Amino acid sequence: MTSPANWFYLTGFTGESGALVVSRKGTSLITDGRFLTQGRAETVGVRIVHHKGLLFGGVGQFLKDSRFRRVGFDANQVTVGQLQSLRKAAGAGVRWVPAPGKVEGLRMRKDAAELSQMRRAAIVAGEVMQSAIGLLKPGIREFEVAAEIEYQMRKRGASGPAFETIVAFGERAALPHARPTAKRLRKNELVVLDLGVILGHYCSDITRTVHVGRASKRTRTWYQAVLEAQTAAIAAVKSGAACGDVDWAARQVLAGYHLDQLFVHSTGHGLGLEVHEDPRVARGQKKRLEPGNVITIEPGVYAAGVGGIRIEDDVAVHADRTEVLTRVPRDLIEI
Amino acid sequence: MTSPANWFYLTGFTGESGALVVSRKGTSLITDGRFLTQGRAETVGVRIVHHKGLLFGGVGQFLKDSRFRRVGFDANQVTVGQLQSLRKAAGAGVRWVPAPGKVEGLRMRKDAAELSQMRRAAIVAGEVMQSAIGLLKPGIREFEVAAEIEYQMRKRGASGPAFETIVAFGERAALPHARPTAKRLRKNELVVLDLGVILGHYCSDITRTVHVGRASKRTRTWYQAVLEAQTAAIAAVKSGAACGDVDWAARQVLAGYHLDQLFVHSTGHGLGLEVHEDPRVARGQKKRLEPGNVITIEPGVYAAGVGGIRIEDDVAVHADRTEVLTRVPRDLIEI
Repeated sequence: MTSPANWFYLTGFTGESGALVVSRKGTSLITDGRFLTQGRAETVGVRIVHHKGLLFGGVGQFLKDSRFRRVGFDANQVTVGQLQSLRKAAGAGVRWVPAPGKVEGLRMRKDAAELSQMRRAAIVAGEVMQSAIGLLKPGIREFEVAAEIEYQMRKRGASGPAFETIVAFGERAALPHARPTAKRLRKNELVVLDLGVILGHYCSDITRTVHVGRASKRTRTWYQAVLEAQTAAIAAVKSGAACGDVDWAARQVLAGYHLDQLFVHSTGHGLGLEVHEDPRVARGQKKRLEPGNVITIEPGVYAAGVGGIRIEDDVAVHADRTEVLTRVPRDLIEI
Repeated sequence: MTSPANWFYLTGFTGESGALVVSRKGTSLITDGRFLTQGRAETVGVRIVHHKGLLFGGVGQFLKDSRFRRVGFDANQVTVGQLQSLRKAAGAGVRWVPAPGKVEGLRMRKDAAELSQMRRAAIVAGEVMQSAIGLLKPGIREFEVAAEIEYQMRKRGASGPAFETIVAFGERAALPHARPTAKRLRKNELVVLDLGVILGHYCSDITRTVHVGRASKRTRTWYQAVLEAQTAAIAAVKSGAACGDVDWAARQVLAGYHLDQLFVHSTGHGLGLEVHEDPRVARGQKKRLEPGNVITIEPGVYAAGVGGIRIEDDVAVHADRTEVLTRVPRDLIEI
């Protein structure tokens, strides 16, 4: 395992470089001098192995010394170059077996403790969103709002933002992943705020769209369409539903408004230790939702030169119900 | 090219997902619906290609449609799974040639405009460091200091921290990569502050160590050793010097104090669009420094149960001189 989220999930190790080897003989964490003390302090029952030089050479050497003969690796995590280094250092005695997504599969089903942590992360994101909306006054700059948002996250105990905070005013709201700039807020602009925190290692992700001044009829209609699309997709979330059907529910509503061409991304994504994880809530995805899944539902419409509208919440799937973790009003706010 | 730093370097595109194909026929950026408007706005002379479905399938299809026959890819960036998807979608007509580090090689030599941006990023990091040192009073929590640090970064126009800010008090300073916790500062503790900003896309990285109260004789000696090691390594930086010799200069000083066993990482790393890039300033590295290289020099000593001391600055290599970009006093501060 070479992904930090995966080794944290399995062992509690929060270091940034290393590889975890799990076998019937036990679990070993191969890491460098920077993380030895941390590895020993954070894990239980894990052998900490110190490698010098480059990581993948060290891991290959460890596998060779341990006389492993069949080693599974995640083809979606390991680069072509890393596999070359592993092969070279481990020698001909090791057979390499692609074994993608094993830990990601486990991580998809959050247990009660994880869900409770994710509820807290969602609540904090909601509080930060409310405080950010309070800052929106003509003249303020995008990066000033982003600074306040991330400061509020930290003040509430978050270890940081779960992704680069999006604060997009006016035409810039047409970019689904706009980066905050020095642009100042003006009257009659849309504002897209998309933020999330990492709290106790788990991520949240919420988006709200606000209008500065009284919205035009078109803006109201578009907002209503996105809100209905989101409501329909959340209603489609249940244990056993295919992810593609949840995506379709949102797309179908927007098609009724002839806005489906402006919905340029997928409806949502899994959320947990990482801000984007399985399952994908996208067109044609056959994967079925299961209890313990946590996903975002975030339809939006974007028109170059005009702006954009997106509404996003985090939703947990239970055996018998759906729980919306982010609790912030969804009606159009006009400031 | 599949790394955001590489495609930004070549085209100015700041989106988060895509692939850049450069050939004699021209340059194409394959990306999804979220980034089309952004790609068109940010680039000049680049064809923007919209893919639906998964990225690497889309890229493979594009290569097939364009009838490319030999495609270089970076084996250090492309995963085993991505290469499989590319091969499958591109078909048998494409030959895949490992071509690692081509853009990273260019990025190592910063031009005048890049150096000027990196100077600004270093100055801002220094200002933030000075303001953070001013906050250190017994009772304050690690994450409160981290929150203030990142807020000050944003206030000064940074797009964010270049890496997770390190604020480590007391024994926690023994972890070279400690994450900020709720721990409160007490008298007679060491504090390691390691921070950097991204400003205009370029990173800075600075570390200072402060003592709360009057330092013991041992702490003073250790601090002096680290400072001498850093001074020696900076003096060893010059165009034509091998990176391993710069590392050795720091290590040699610490060995004189019998502290080399407590220096558990390498002396530094390249800095630029990414916070860790080429060249590596580590044991045995034969790569020679060239004008335009920017590296960190950051020796440290760490003792579990006691604490740690690290001093880090950013240094630019010129044909005839060495320029220290981060300008914050390096003497031991006792608060």
